[in-house]
Amino acid sequence: MKVSVVKNILEANDRIADLNKKIFDEKGVLVINIMSSPGAGKTTLIESTIKALKNEYKIAVIEGDIQSTYDADKIAATGVQAVQINTGGACHIDGNMIRETFDQFNFNEIDLLIVENVGNLVCPAEFQMGEDYKVMLLSIPEGDDKPLKYPLMFHESSVLLINKIDLLPYIDCSVEKIRSESSKINPNLNIFEVSGKTQQGLENWINWLRGKIIAKNDA
Amino acid sequence: MKVSVVKNILEANDRIADLNKKIFDEKGVLVINIMSSPGAGKTTLIESTIKALKNEYKIAVIEGDIQSTYDADKIAATGVQAVQINTGGACHIDGNMIRETFDQFNFNEIDLLIVENVGNLVCPAEFQMGEDYKVMLLSIPEGDDKPLKYPLMFHESSVLLINKIDLLPYIDCSVEKIRSESSKINPNLNIFEVSGKTQQGLENWINWLRGKIIAKNDA
Repeated sequence: MKVSVVKNILEANDRIADLNKKIFDEKGVLVINIMSSPGAGKTTLIESTIKALKNEYKIAVIEGDIQSTYDADKIAATGVQAVQINTGGACHIDGNMIRETFDQFNFNEIDLLIVENVGNLVCPAEFQMGEDYKVMLLSIPEGDDKPLKYPLMFHESSVLLINKIDLLPYIDCSVEKIRSESSKINPNLNIFEVSGKTQQGLENWINWLRGKIIAKNDA
Repeated sequence: MKVSVVKNILEANDRIADLNKKIFDEKGVLVINIMSSPGAGKTTLIESTIKALKNEYKIAVIEGDIQSTYDADKIAATGVQAVQINTGGACHIDGNMIRETFDQFNFNEIDLLIVENVGNLVCPAEFQMGEDYKVMLLSIPEGDDKPLKYPLMFHESSVLLINKIDLLPYIDCSVEKIRSESSKINPNLNIFEVSGKTQQGLENWINWLRGKIIAKNDA
């Protein structure tokens, strides 16, 4: 009974996500859905990404939080449009929440829409929103057993950013183990090692993203 | 519609949790529900807690994971009984999952039952399981904005363990901010600063827990 309710919710969400995707495709907006555990560094990564690309492309951000506008305020300070979704307790962003922000955007003037999901390594992976790519962060302090224990998000993502690598000297965590376990779950996963704090490795992520924006604009 | 489905699920769960609680109370078993983000250090804390108390009390552990028996194997290595719940995708443990483990325990011989929840700072806080106390971990690398952004778990918990304080020199995080924001949400929260790695501060947590086991045994 409970399972079929959940299945119906996910199917209804998929239909809304498909409609969102059509609009994003028509307007040539590349949409990325950024997911991770709480505190893995999503907001800092988004700030760095905006700084690296805002002179080349028009960027907007949707910030998903259970409550508060803490992160959206930080993003707005970078000078790009930031729209807050407060989920009111819900543990993920869904297609309908994204749809409800549409009247706040002029998609003709946006090249890249970044969605910061609620901090949660489980539920967001199940809900499509019409994005082109799912991008996940795993931070070094979370440990190298996470692919094994939370495989769905690794399976669904196109990019894994192994974040906070500046902390490697102080923490018992094997980047090689994260790489090998993640690749077993998802052989197509693009893996970049980065530090949002020191900016180390960010250029690889930025180059990947730039390529996807160009491809979407040409499509 | 969706909201009422969720409400019904939560109410049904509360009824099962109440039945679990009756059994735990009759048998004098203290039950604690350990919750946190993925990688905040729950399993290591449980291992340290077992080592500190296993000569005084009979302890058993229920390990909740989406899949894998990785953590349960670690706990079994400490010599106490460890029972694995694999939620098969679900983002939390509920009352019924706990109930389904009962035939694996002899509660007459257990003083303390520790339940390690799925790593998730959101959903587990909504689901009662019949526990006496909810205990949450927040690790320093997650950042000091977490009480503000994920208030429900801070509100529901009796204890907050601020973990990984050995990393404070390398990370921009204010313990004072965590303390003040958490206490605003929940003035009755017992807050202990600990490091599962260096064992720093663990005695305060152990003393709190010992007091609760004694009180439950006397009840």
